[in-house]
Amino acid sequence: MAESTNMRLRLPLLCIILEVILIVLFGTLVEYNDDTDAKLWNENRNHSATRNDHENEFYYRYPSFQDVHVMIFVGFGFLMTFLQRYGFSSVGFNFLIAAFSLQWATLMQGFFHGLHHGKIHVGVTSMINADFCTGSVLISFGAVLGKTSPVQLLVMAIFEVTLFAVNEFILLSIFGANDAGGSMTIHTFGAYFGLMVTRVLYRPNLDKSKHRNSSVYHSDLFAMIGTIYLWMFWPSFNSAITNYGDPQHRTAMNTYYSLAACTLATFAFSALVNPEGKLDMVHIQNAALAGGVAVGTAGEMMLTAFGSMIVGFLAGTISYHVCCCFIQDTCGIHNLHGMPGVLGAVVGSVTAALASPEVYGHGLQRVFADVETGKWNPQSKGGFQAISLAVTLGMALFGGLITGLILKLPIYGAPPDTQCFEDGLYWEVPGEEESQHELYEVATSNEVEKLSS
Amino acid sequence: MAESTNMRLRLPLLCIILEVILIVLFGTLVEYNDDTDAKLWNENRNHSATRNDHENEFYYRYPSFQDVHVMIFVGFGFLMTFLQRYGFSSVGFNFLIAAFSLQWATLMQGFFHGLHHGKIHVGVTSMINADFCTGSVLISFGAVLGKTSPVQLLVMAIFEVTLFAVNEFILLSIFGANDAGGSMTIHTFGAYFGLMVTRVLYRPNLDKSKHRNSSVYHSDLFAMIGTIYLWMFWPSFNSAITNYGDPQHRTAMNTYYSLAACTLATFAFSALVNPEGKLDMVHIQNAALAGGVAVGTAGEMMLTAFGSMIVGFLAGTISYHVCCCFIQDTCGIHNLHGMPGVLGAVVGSVTAALASPEVYGHGLQRVFADVETGKWNPQSKGGFQAISLAVTLGMALFGGLITGLILKLPIYGAPPDTQCFEDGLYWEVPGEEESQHELYEVATSNEVEKLSS
Amino acid sequence: MAESTNMRLRLPLLCIILEVILIVLFGTLVEYNDDTDAKLWNENRNHSATRNDHENEFYYRYPSFQDVHVMIFVGFGFLMTFLQRYGFSSVGFNFLIAAFSLQWATLMQGFFHGLHHGKIHVGVTSMINADFCTGSVLISFGAVLGKTSPVQLLVMAIFEVTLFAVNEFILLSIFGANDAGGSMTIHTFGAYFGLMVTRVLYRPNLDKSKHRNSSVYHSDLFAMIGTIYLWMFWPSFNSAITNYGDPQHRTAMNTYYSLAACTLATFAFSALVNPEGKLDMVHIQNAALAGGVAVGTAGEMMLTAFGSMIVGFLAGTISYHVCCCFIQDTCGIHNLHGMPGVLGAVVGSVTAALASPEVYGHGLQRVFADVETGKWNPQSKGGFQAISLAVTLGMALFGGLITGLILKLPIYGAPPDTQCFEDGLYWEVPGEEESQHELYEVATSNEVEKLSS
Repeated sequence: MAESTNMRLRLPLLCIILEVILIVLFGTLVEYNDDTDAKLWNENRNHSATRNDHENEFYYRYPSFQDVHVMIFVGFGFLMTFLQRYGFSSVGFNFLIAAFSLQWATLMQGFFHGLHHGKIHVGVTSMINADFCTGSVLISFGAVLGKTSPVQLLVMAIFEVTLFAVNEFILLSIFGANDAGGSMTIHTFGAYFGLMVTRVLYRPNLDKSKHRNSSVYHSDLFAMIGTIYLWMFWPSFNSAITNYGDPQHRTAMNTYYSLAACTLATFAFSALVNPEGKLDMVHIQNAALAGGVAVGTAGEMMLTAFGSMIVGFLAGTISYHVCCCFIQDTCGIHNLHGMPGVLGAVVGSVTAALASPEVYGHGLQRVFADVETGKWNPQSKGGFQAISLAVTLGMALFGGLITGLILKLPIYGAPPDTQCFEDGLYWEVPGEEESQHELYEVATSNEVEKLSS
Repeated sequence: MAESTNMRLRLPLLCIILEVILIVLFGTLVEYNDDTDAKLWNENRNHSATRNDHENEFYYRYPSFQDVHVMIFVGFGFLMTFLQRYGFSSVGFNFLIAAFSLQWATLMQGFFHGLHHGKIHVGVTSMINADFCTGSVLISFGAVLGKTSPVQLLVMAIFEVTLFAVNEFILLSIFGANDAGGSMTIHTFGAYFGLMVTRVLYRPNLDKSKHRNSSVYHSDLFAMIGTIYLWMFWPSFNSAITNYGDPQHRTAMNTYYSLAACTLATFAFSALVNPEGKLDMVHIQNAALAGGVAVGTAGEMMLTAFGSMIVGFLAGTISYHVCCCFIQDTCGIHNLHGMPGVLGAVVGSVTAALASPEVYGHGLQRVFADVETGKWNPQSKGGFQAISLAVTLGMALFGGLITGLILKLPIYGAPPDTQCFEDGLYWEVPGEEESQHELYEVATSNEVEKLSS
Repeated sequence: MAESTNMRLRLPLLCIILEVILIVLFGTLVEYNDDTDAKLWNENRNHSATRNDHENEFYYRYPSFQDVHVMIFVGFGFLMTFLQRYGFSSVGFNFLIAAFSLQWATLMQGFFHGLHHGKIHVGVTSMINADFCTGSVLISFGAVLGKTSPVQLLVMAIFEVTLFAVNEFILLSIFGANDAGGSMTIHTFGAYFGLMVTRVLYRPNLDKSKHRNSSVYHSDLFAMIGTIYLWMFWPSFNSAITNYGDPQHRTAMNTYYSLAACTLATFAFSALVNPEGKLDMVHIQNAALAGGVAVGTAGEMMLTAFGSMIVGFLAGTISYHVCCCFIQDTCGIHNLHGMPGVLGAVVGSVTAALASPEVYGHGLQRVFADVETGKWNPQSKGGFQAISLAVTLGMALFGGLITGLILKLPIYGAPPDTQCFEDGLYWEVPGEEESQHELYEVATSNEVEKLSS
C-alpha cells in the first residue's frame, strides 16, 4: 500500500514533462506586449508627445497584481492549513499547482482571448488573469483537500485551467458579460467543478481518517493568516482588471463595504447556531469572505456602498444555511465560493439590468460598452449575465464530472482511506520538539521514581 | 457563572441591529465622491483636456491604503496573539470590532468633516480615514485585552469612534492642526481612552487568571508577525493622507529612519534592563514600534532624516521608563502608543514652530496652508499643535471614563476573574494534537508496563 | 561559560555607540533629494508646466519598495525560523541587523555612488538600495545562523555593508555593469562572503548541538511564511530600481515566469532524490527561490518569458547538486544564493552580449546606455558583465576572510558548541503551554492512580 503512494518517479516525471511542454509552447507562442517590449513601448512613446512612462499599464495594475498574488499563494495556501496534520501539503501543494497553473493559464487564456498574428501577448494584465484562473483551481483543491496526491492535483489543474479558459471565452468574448471579480468565472466555476470532482471521488470509508479531519489550536491560527489576507486584499482582487479610473476605484470601495458587513453577519450567525453561543473558527475563516465573492460581478457597477453592504450581509448569512458535507467538501467551498458566487452572479445580472445613462453618464461605456453603443439594452444585458451563470454551472459540473472520472484511475498514488489528511504520506515530517520529549521524560521519571520508592 | 458569559443571543442581536442601522444610514447619507462616481469622474475628465485616469486619487492612495489595511487586520490582530490561550480572541475580536468600526467611522467622520448637500462623499481617502479611526479603537482594545466580552468591545467601539470623530474635527477642522500620521488623534487618543477604560474596569482579583497572562514560544512568534507588519508598513501609515508629492514621499522616508533608529534603542535597553542581559520579546514586540508613533505628526514636515532618527531613538528609550502595570494594561499600550504619542505631539509642535519659507519654499502651503496664507505665524501654529495635544488628552480621558462606567454594567457577559485571557469562554477550542496524545500514551504505557513487570 | 555570553553590557554599548555615530553622520552628511525636499520639488514643478505630482519618483517606486521591505523583514526573518529552538533569534536578530544595516548602507552607498556638493541625497531609491544591501547581510546571516552572538552579527554587518558598497561602486559606476536585481552585487556577494565567514568560524565540535539543528512541524510552517513572501515579491525585488516603463514591467514579468518554472523543478527533484519519493521542506523552502536569484541580472533585458523559464528551471535544478555542508552553512545559502547568483551573472553576461538595436529599438538606451552611445559594443559589454562576477567573487571571499578572522576574537560572547541553535542563550524564553502541562499531569496521575490501586 505504501508503495502505491510513492511519488519518486510519478511526480518528477510529470513535473518535468509539463515544464518542458510549457517552455516549448512559450518559446513558440509567447511575445512581450506593447507595454513590456523594449522596442514597441519606446516607439509608441515617440509617436505620441503626451504618452509618458506613468501611462504604462504596469503602474495602473502592478500593485493590484501583487495583492492578488498574495491571495493566491499566502491566502489560499494558509487558509487550508487548518487541518492538524496537513499543513505542509496545504501550503506546499497549493504552491506547486499554482506555479503550474499560472503558466498553463497564460497559454490557454492567451489562445482563447485573442492571438496577435498567431502570438500570445503578455504583460501585467495577463499575469493577473493567470492568477485569477489559478484561484479557480485552488478553490477546487479545497474540496478534495487531504484526499488526493500531488499528481492527481496537477492532472486536475490541466483540465480545469483549460475548461476555465473556454468558459471565460464564452462569457466575456461571446456574451460580452461583465465579471471583473469573477463571481461566475472564478468562484462559481471553481466551486462547482471541485464539488463535482470530490463527489465522483467519494470515499465511503473516509471515516477511517476522521480523527485527522479537524484542527488544533495553532493550525487554526495559521489558517487565520490565510483568511485575513484574503479578506484584506479582496478589494484589489475584484478591481484588478476593471477599467482604469472610476471603475477600479469604485470596485475596491464596494468590496470593502461588502466585506465589512459580511463580517458582522458572520459573527452573529456563528454565535447564534452554537448551543452555548460560542464562536467557531471554521465559520470565521470562511463565511467572512463570502462578501468579497458576492460583489465579484456587480462591484464595478454603481452598486453603491449601501447596496454592497446588503449583498455582503446576505452573503454572510446564506453561508450558514447550505451544507454540502455529504459530498465530502473538506474546506466547505460550497459555502465560501459556491453559493456566494451564484448570489454574485444574480446581483450582477440585476444591477446590469438597472443600468442607465442617467446614473452612469459618460461613464457608461467604461462599464457597459455594449449598452452604450446601443448593441444591447440594459435588460438584454442583464439577461446575458443570467445566461452566463447557467453556462458556467453547466461547464463546471460537466467538466468536474469528466475530470473526476479521469482522476479515479488507480495510477496517481492517491492516499488510502486510512491515510487521508496526513502529511507523512508525501512529505518528510520532522519529529516532535525536543523540549516536549524532555518535558515528558523528566515528568514521567519523577512519577515513576516516586512510585518505586 | 458560565451562563452569564453566553453570547448566543447578545452578540447576534447586537451585530445584526448595528449592521441594520449602518445599512440604513449608508442608504440615506452616503454617496460616491467625484473620483468613484461613474458620471462625475467622466464629466470632470471631459471638461479638462489634461485630466487623465492616473490623476484619480485611487492611484495616489490605494497602495498606502492596502498597507494601512494590513496593519489594522494583521498587524494589530497578530500583535495581540502573544497570550498563550487568547489567540482566537485576539485575531477574531480584532477582526469583528475593526469591521464594525470602519463602517461606523465612515459615517461619523463624514458627518463631522463636512457634508456635501447633506451627503457623505466616500472614496479611498475616507477608507484610509476609517481605518485610522479603527486603529484607535484597536489600541484601546490592547489595554482591555483578555478581560472583556465581544459585546463590551463593540459597545466600546461605538463610543470611541464617535468621540474620535469629534476630537479629530476639533483638531483638524477648528484648530487646523497637522497630524497626518495621528500621533495625537490616533495614538494619544486611543491609548489614554483605553487606559482610562481599563482603569475603570479594574479587577482586584485578576491574579486568579495570571497563569494565562503570559506567552508561550509559538504565540510569541505569531505576535512577531504582527509586530513586523506594523513596523514595515508604518511609513505608509504616516504618509497615507498627506498631500501628494513631496510631503507623502518625505513622510514615508522620515518614518523609515525613525523606526530603524528606534529598533537599535529597543534592543539596547531590552538587554540592559535584564540582569542576565537577555532580550525580552515583550520589549521587541512593542518598543520597536514607538518610532513610528513618535513621528506621526512631524513626519510630513522638514524634520530631516537626522531629526527623525533622534526622535526614533528617544521613543525607543522612553518606552522602557514608564510602566502602567498597576492599571492592568494588558498589551502595554502606554509604552507603545501613549508616551510615544505625546512625544510625537511635542515634536510636531516644535517642528511646526520652526517652519519658515526659507526651508519650505513654495512647498510651505502644502504642509502649513494656514501659515502660508498668513493666517497664523509658525509660533502660533506650534501653539495650536500643543493645545491640540491637551484637548486630545482631555477628550480621551473623559471619554474613557464615561465609556468605562457604561461597560461596567453587568449585562455584557464579561469573563469572570478566573476566566480572563482564555479563548474557551467565547470560542469552540479544538483539542490537542493527536500526535501529542499518542506520544504521551505510548510513552506512559511503556513506563507503566516496565513498572508492572 | 554562561557569563561569557552575557549581552548586558556589550550589546547595549555597541547599539548605542553605533546609533549615535549614525545620527551624527546623518546630521552632517544627509539631505533630502529633489523629490523629497519641500523647496526643491515645488520649485522644479513651477519651472515645468507639465511636471506633476504623479511624476514624483515616490509613485513609481514606493509600492516596489514596500514589497522589498517585506522580503527583508518578513521574508528573510521567517525563512530562518525553521530551526526548532531558534525562532526568536531568527526573526529578532534579522530585525536588529537589518535596522542597523539599512542606516549604515544609506551612508556607505551615498558616499560611494556620488555626493552632491559633499552631501548624500536620499529618497525612495536610496531606501530601496539600502534594503538591497541589507539583504546581502541577511544572506550571510543565513550561513552563520545559530552560531553567532548578536554582537558578532552587528560587527559582521559593519564590514559587509562597507565592502558591499565598494563592490557595487566598482561594478555599477566603474564597469557600468547591469545588475538591477543584484545576482552579483547582492546574492553572489552575500553568499560567498557568508560562506567564507562561516568557514573561518568552523566549529569542529558543532555536533554537540546537532539535536537542535533541525526543524519541527510548526517551525517549518513559520519558515514557509518567509519562503512564500520572498517568492511572491521577487518580481518587485528585481524590478525595483530598473528604469521606468518597459524595463520595470518586463523585469517583473520575467521574474514571475522564472520563479514558476523553478518551482516545478524544485518539486520534481525533491521527490526524485528521496528514496521514498517524499518531498522535503528544506528543498521547497530554498530551491523554489533560486529562480528569482538567477534572473537578477538579465531580468530587465529582452530575455523573454521563454528564456526566463529555462533559466528558472536550471536554477531549480542546480540547487540540488552542490552541497556545502562541510563548511557548516546552516541555511544552505550556497544553494539558494551562491550558485543561482553565479548562474544569474553568466546569463546576464550572455544576454547582454546578444543585445542589438534590432531587438531593443529606441529602448536600447534604457537598458544599455553605454551600448547605445557607442561607448561599448554588446560583446565588450558582455565581457564587463563577466569581469564583474569575478571581481564580486574576489571581494566577497577576501572580505569574508578578513571579517571572519575579526569575528574569531573571543570578545563577542559567541555561543559555546553545546549551546548553538538555542534561543535561551540570548532571549528570555517563556515556559511551555499550560494545557500541555495539564494534559500531562492529568494523564500521569490517572495512570499512577490505577497502578497504586
